[in-house]
Amino acid sequence: MTDQQTGPDTSPATSPAPVTDPGSASGPALSRRRLLGTAGATGLVLGGAGVAAGYTAAPAAATPLTSLGADRAMFHVKHQPGITTPLQARGHLIAFDLAAGAGRKEAAALLRRWSDTAERLMAGEPAAHDDTDVARDAGPSSLTVTFGFGHSFFARTGLEKQRPVALDPLPDFSSDHLDKNRSNGDLWVQIGANDALVAFHALRALQKEAGSAARVRWQMNGFNRTPGATSHPMTARNLMGQVDGTRNPKPSDDDFDKRIFVPASGEPAWMANGSYAVVRRIRMLLDDWEKLSAHAQEHVIGRRKADGAPLTGGGETTAMDLEKTDADGNLVVPLNAHARITRPDQNGGAAILRRPFSFHDGFDGDGVPDAGLLFIAWQADPLRGFVPLQRKLDRGDALSQFIRHEASGLFAVPGGAAKGEYVGQRLLEA
Amino acid sequence: MTDQQTGPDTSPATSPAPVTDPGSASGPALSRRRLLGTAGATGLVLGGAGVAAGYTAAPAAATPLTSLGADRAMFHVKHQPGITTPLQARGHLIAFDLAAGAGRKEAAALLRRWSDTAERLMAGEPAAHDDTDVARDAGPSSLTVTFGFGHSFFARTGLEKQRPVALDPLPDFSSDHLDKNRSNGDLWVQIGANDALVAFHALRALQKEAGSAARVRWQMNGFNRTPGATSHPMTARNLMGQVDGTRNPKPSDDDFDKRIFVPASGEPAWMANGSYAVVRRIRMLLDDWEKLSAHAQEHVIGRRKADGAPLTGGGETTAMDLEKTDADGNLVVPLNAHARITRPDQNGGAAILRRPFSFHDGFDGDGVPDAGLLFIAWQADPLRGFVPLQRKLDRGDALSQFIRHEASGLFAVPGGAAKGEYVGQRLLEA
Repeated sequence: MTDQQTGPDTSPATSPAPVTDPGSASGPALSRRRLLGTAGATGLVLGGAGVAAGYTAAPAAATPLTSLGADRAMFHVKHQPGITTPLQARGHLIAFDLAAGAGRKEAAALLRRWSDTAERLMAGEPAAHDDTDVARDAGPSSLTVTFGFGHSFFARTGLEKQRPVALDPLPDFSSDHLDKNRSNGDLWVQIGANDALVAFHALRALQKEAGSAARVRWQMNGFNRTPGATSHPMTARNLMGQVDGTRNPKPSDDDFDKRIFVPASGEPAWMANGSYAVVRRIRMLLDDWEKLSAHAQEHVIGRRKADGAPLTGGGETTAMDLEKTDADGNLVVPLNAHARITRPDQNGGAAILRRPFSFHDGFDGDGVPDAGLLFIAWQADPLRGFVPLQRKLDRGDALSQFIRHEASGLFAVPGGAAKGEYVGQRLLEA
Repeated sequence: MTDQQTGPDTSPATSPAPVTDPGSASGPALSRRRLLGTAGATGLVLGGAGVAAGYTAAPAAATPLTSLGADRAMFHVKHQPGITTPLQARGHLIAFDLAAGAGRKEAAALLRRWSDTAERLMAGEPAAHDDTDVARDAGPSSLTVTFGFGHSFFARTGLEKQRPVALDPLPDFSSDHLDKNRSNGDLWVQIGANDALVAFHALRALQKEAGSAARVRWQMNGFNRTPGATSHPMTARNLMGQVDGTRNPKPSDDDFDKRIFVPASGEPAWMANGSYAVVRRIRMLLDDWEKLSAHAQEHVIGRRKADGAPLTGGGETTAMDLEKTDADGNLVVPLNAHARITRPDQNGGAAILRRPFSFHDGFDGDGVPDAGLLFIAWQADPLRGFVPLQRKLDRGDALSQFIRHEASGLFAVPGGAAKGEYVGQRLLEA
């Protein structure tokens, strides 16, 4: 997992020379990264006391660059960033369709531009052309950009033979209420960062680089807890107030790579070290959910709200005792409890890495929140990950009456680009 | 300004006893705040190294509670929180109309419930009734809740005689494209926090407390830079990439209180220490804006993009030389430059405290971003603050062709509640 690590960007200290901006006719320009390096050092010298002092000063006073801003994810890694990277506070999902007349050549040029932009922005540099300055003064803030290809991409580029079987459309589920206009797409981009302006800056820069080659099909915004807002040694919470993701496979698991990533020798060859992303906009029917007592909610899930521990006892990571009964002989974890149904060992070892963002797009009429989960599940093979899991949920999950799947996408996310390479090059220039 | 200060919540250390949850029949319960106190201490012991180590660990690993999470704004203060409080990373604006049949009595009970809830949540406690657990494990994260009354509130509650003249409807401006359904409202609530789940938790808790007394009229979401993402000693940036708020009055200014707050002896008496909020949803026409060169953008604003300094030289806070001409005899800061028009000393001393959130509600058709600024301006008197300023802008601001005012509200925000009091009590129980 070392290739996914983030940490303070120390490169300015070792390469302090001005960087020439290739997009500028006026010659050498101070890079944003260099400015940050200097300023960041000051922030670090101030230390914890500096944070507090800055915060209690006048409105809009400067706060030191902390690890939140300085942390940086790497672009040229074995697996694309944004899969095992820690959850970020802000996320954007955006899908594009290739424009009429655009084919393989235009797609290749687009992925090259996008990869270059992603690498620059993830390093805290401005975009190569006409940077909007929206991220100026900010650190990389753990920005990640992740690129994927949808089923329809391959026919439009004459690459049907390279289309993975794993991209075959997901089966219909009885609980689906899918909006086609917010589903699928030729190309998918996931953006995450711990600063909302850094994330928006990347979103706009990538949209602009699409130029005439591709047009926006749909776009969604999400969020997670801000690093530092909690100290609890616990998985994320969702907008239902539940601890979410407890059973996620861990990178330290022996079979993690096998379950989440296509092997280096996998098929098709261009997907080596890649993964498949299932994206679902899952609306939470919060008004209904919140009418339940906490006790009733816990029986829907099978876990305690307070700490995510199984109803059969222990802590968050304690194994669930599926056979345990109460004094009346009833199962403590009901048969239709969400956590029972989704247990990997009850699903032939099916495992997905859930890496979601919550969403809240305001209120519908009468104050009903348009909120829920941008569910993003990563796996080596959707037919052995999401599909069997969702089939089981579809048949008997107690949670299903409180959620609604409103949009869906399935994308092939190739491995990370090597130095000098762009994401998808092994597909587009095969 | 001491009444607005935030800082680590140290109270758990001095009051470690379990707190009885008045909403629970099962007796004493550990308060969220107490749990946080313990866990927070651990985080602080780990210090800076702990932050980095936590961050580079496996996905969703715990990060220590930093000042970002521990910082707390006070509820019982002279001026309501959320006016001079430093900008927060996440914000919600929500307006309510009283329900049919609800009058002064129901409004008073609602404000009492809301004040109680705001005080609890700002301290990191759960809501009194049926807490959703969405903010569980998180620190207060500088949460603020601010309450205001709109023009229509007073007739509905039989309090016309108490309605401030300052609440008279804003004049029409030629650049207005206002959506009435997203404008005004009987009651207005502003929520800000540095954690998105803490902010959403408060939004839902306050919505739930409205019960049958009031229904949601409109709701908007916004964001600012996350504390720690930048170390630059500079004002916030907006989605146009401009430094925004440079000329904001400072709490250290001699006339700050006079310009921003109604005096203790002001009229009407219930507005003592209060302020007026002008709220405008200002859409930015980013596709048009970003077609301009940075040079052209700087001439629209009159300031440099890089650092917000006037085009006439110096740094961000250097006074603008309004008379300076270039070699051709042209004014360096054009006559219609936004920064020239909005200068307080060109507007009879009119001054507003701008405390905005950016917004981004996805894309319209064809990939046009629905994004801009939730402009929130604070002043002692809108007729000497926002109105003359906006009139001048309306006549000749070069920026006006790149923005569109889509919604508008004007709210009377009373002073902070004393201990034992609720916000607005001096109006509703006069």
